[in-house]
Amino acid sequence: MNTRMILKTLGFLLIIEAASMLPSLLVSLIYKGNDFAAFLITIVILLLTGVILYRMKVKNTNLYSRDGFAIVSIGWIMISLFGALPFILSGAIPSFFDAFFECVSGLTTTGSSILQDVEGLPKGILFWRSSTIWLGGMGVLVLTLAILPKAGATSFQIMKAESPGPNPDKLVPKIAQTAQILYSIYLGLTIVLTVLLIIAGMPVYDALIHAIGTAGTGGFSIKNLSVGSYNNIFIEVIITVFMFIFGINFALHYHVLKGNVKSIFKDEEFCFYTGTVIIAIILISVNLTGSVFNSVGESLRHASFQVTSVITTTGYSTYDFNQWPTFSKTILVILMFMGACAGSTSGGMKCIRIVVLLKTVKRELKRILHPRAVNTVKLSGRNLDDSLMSGVTSYFFAYFVVFVISILLISLDGKDLTTTFTSVTTTINNVGPGLGLVGPSGNFADYSDFNKFLFSFIMLFGRLEIFPMLLLFTPSFWRRANI
Amino acid sequence: MNTRMILKTLGFLLIIEAASMLPSLLVSLIYKGNDFAAFLITIVILLLTGVILYRMKVKNTNLYSRDGFAIVSIGWIMISLFGALPFILSGAIPSFFDAFFECVSGLTTTGSSILQDVEGLPKGILFWRSSTIWLGGMGVLVLTLAILPKAGATSFQIMKAESPGPNPDKLVPKIAQTAQILYSIYLGLTIVLTVLLIIAGMPVYDALIHAIGTAGTGGFSIKNLSVGSYNNIFIEVIITVFMFIFGINFALHYHVLKGNVKSIFKDEEFCFYTGTVIIAIILISVNLTGSVFNSVGESLRHASFQVTSVITTTGYSTYDFNQWPTFSKTILVILMFMGACAGSTSGGMKCIRIVVLLKTVKRELKRILHPRAVNTVKLSGRNLDDSLMSGVTSYFFAYFVVFVISILLISLDGKDLTTTFTSVTTTINNVGPGLGLVGPSGNFADYSDFNKFLFSFIMLFGRLEIFPMLLLFTPSFWRRANI
Repeated sequence: MNTRMILKTLGFLLIIEAASMLPSLLVSLIYKGNDFAAFLITIVILLLTGVILYRMKVKNTNLYSRDGFAIVSIGWIMISLFGALPFILSGAIPSFFDAFFECVSGLTTTGSSILQDVEGLPKGILFWRSSTIWLGGMGVLVLTLAILPKAGATSFQIMKAESPGPNPDKLVPKIAQTAQILYSIYLGLTIVLTVLLIIAGMPVYDALIHAIGTAGTGGFSIKNLSVGSYNNIFIEVIITVFMFIFGINFALHYHVLKGNVKSIFKDEEFCFYTGTVIIAIILISVNLTGSVFNSVGESLRHASFQVTSVITTTGYSTYDFNQWPTFSKTILVILMFMGACAGSTSGGMKCIRIVVLLKTVKRELKRILHPRAVNTVKLSGRNLDDSLMSGVTSYFFAYFVVFVISILLISLDGKDLTTTFTSVTTTINNVGPGLGLVGPSGNFADYSDFNKFLFSFIMLFGRLEIFPMLLLFTPSFWRRANI
Repeated sequence: MNTRMILKTLGFLLIIEAASMLPSLLVSLIYKGNDFAAFLITIVILLLTGVILYRMKVKNTNLYSRDGFAIVSIGWIMISLFGALPFILSGAIPSFFDAFFECVSGLTTTGSSILQDVEGLPKGILFWRSSTIWLGGMGVLVLTLAILPKAGATSFQIMKAESPGPNPDKLVPKIAQTAQILYSIYLGLTIVLTVLLIIAGMPVYDALIHAIGTAGTGGFSIKNLSVGSYNNIFIEVIITVFMFIFGINFALHYHVLKGNVKSIFKDEEFCFYTGTVIIAIILISVNLTGSVFNSVGESLRHASFQVTSVITTTGYSTYDFNQWPTFSKTILVILMFMGACAGSTSGGMKCIRIVVLLKTVKRELKRILHPRAVNTVKLSGRNLDDSLMSGVTSYFFAYFVVFVISILLISLDGKDLTTTFTSVTTTINNVGPGLGLVGPSGNFADYSDFNKFLFSFIMLFGRLEIFPMLLLFTPSFWRRANI
């Protein structure tokens, strides 16, 4: 393990975190909140630690696979710990476990909360809480790569370990440039959304918060009733459309910006994602009409918002779907597991993995019918190689092992089965709300400190797609750490 | 597709079913029940149809992979339909959907029931109901192979499609002989268990019924309170031990009978199975002591019985575990998915698949740490080939797809989430009881005819391990059927 290079990169990461706290400091200054000192102290601590680590002398700048994974898993835990400081220091969330949960929930773009009354918090603190979502969305380390001086080709290991999905796209040969393109699109879309929300009638501060929450598919709101509290159909439609957009692979956004619109419809994952959204909206609308809402229009409105919010793992809500019939709730839970596209800001398993796994089942059926035929699996016209496929299948099982162990540990708390099952589902998939006590109108405040700490790690396991976190628990990972 | 040969084999299967109905006819005669005529009529119908099909002239006796799968899937549906006749004709279960459900539940060794008062039924009908479990346990087609004149090497396709687990063992070179050995062990163990239960104080009829239910890991009881109604610790211990034994791969039984006792401890699946049982019993006992039972002994007694019953997917109960704390219930639900060993009479995913999947995760972790190293996966000392591993992973996902679609369809009924989730869990894994409305003290009577029909197919999907049933829904499977 190249420990010096790892520490140096982590140092730069802390400097980035300090910089990203500046807007919150500014908000706190504008609104004259009592949280100004908390931000100032944290920024100083971050800068001091960051600069010391970054100035470390490095002989060998090569990063191997395990180094990339180490940077990502340790990096995320580290920025979560430092990111919780403003919550604690300002007294907004005095308990360490609560503050850590809230910060991890933001960075992993989950959006689950232990806060029972969001509206009472200082504006600066709420802004930082939402900023964590934006940072985590495209990956705080991808941001680091975009800015890091001399992010070489070996940094691809970092991108591989942090990016959602089985295989990140290199848009251009240089990794730093790819990261810059991704973050430019991300920033551009966020700005467009903010402007649209302001036009639709949202106050500027609210528009910024909700644009950030949508862009990162995190879904922290500053209203106890989430987006539903505005009761404004324009706002709902805008957010629905943008949640859908942020669920699309950013590589496709890039191709469309380059003028290659056709590429979208050639992409099997995009077609699967869009098809699933449409089918789910129709099924839920039919189920709700008559039983929950009187008009088809009302059903469509709430079904569209909730379906898009859940499949993109954003977690905003306009209606407490905990009150919906079992069929609708079942669909939403299935969508939670699914997630949107790889290379987007969403969580969950990602549509591309579902598509690949469905193809392996189809191949097995073919193998039974024609045992001697050679079956290659194609995705969007290209042959899939075996290592990618075995990566997907072992990911799928590793995910389930972590899921089952999490359920087992959380069930010790003794909450009902629906709450236990969906609280783990919503955190490992980085959605936000679940069902039962953790439904859209509930939160995670009732859980013990031990459970909140567990949930924080479940969110990290989900966001980093199991393996980087799993490696931390592998003894051989820690061997051969040379300084 | 070799349609003539398929029909001929199916004809022989019907003759076997007629023969296996004779003991029930005898029981009905002894107890002078009003079900005698029902059995007689059914046997005549079975014999007539069976003989006509079996006398069909066949030019080509070769069976290919797809033929084996066709025989198994169509065969199981067929014997379920014919097997439901005595229930309907005797008036014991007048509805077709109820009778079909009950017969499939027996043949698939599930043991779920739509009967609300078991104790009121005629003895012959109850005996037939339990006989179906015994027939289905080792596979009614494996039984056919054991008796079929000239069951050639090509019949291995049938065995492959019906046997539980990824890869059936050929104990001896000849397939008919292997089937005979398996059924001899199965019969021998059932007789030993019957005798032990009689010694422990059970009436002869009850002992036979419960021995059959244990051997096939089906768990139909003739008491509304299941095994708990006897309140006899000897009976409970004997059944616990034998449920565990029937959960072991029958190939291991054979090796032990041959004097090779060591082979058991070299078998990774057996060690995993035993370890899981022990750990689950300890965890549940600790959870129950103080909260449900006052003494450790009482906790151990009920935990051992329920754990063994659930992991072997038998489904007998001595206590309504629906009333247990969430942690214990969660463990039991996880065990439902797991199942016992391949090549046993149990359902679920089978321990061997879990072991193989855990090994693929381990291999993926190694691949991340040492990208260039070659990693072969070993099981019980032997290298696993890629086709077996890809079979296991695609099975795992196919299983989940069927599971999710089933949940979705059943959720339309509008029952609570726990009932919906566990009713599908318990049927696809062929366990018997679930939680909520389908817990040990509940049953499936409340579901609509449509749902009962669905559950029947879910049980068949589970027992035949997804692919044979999935093929029935594949259009290309039906092409090229030459008569």
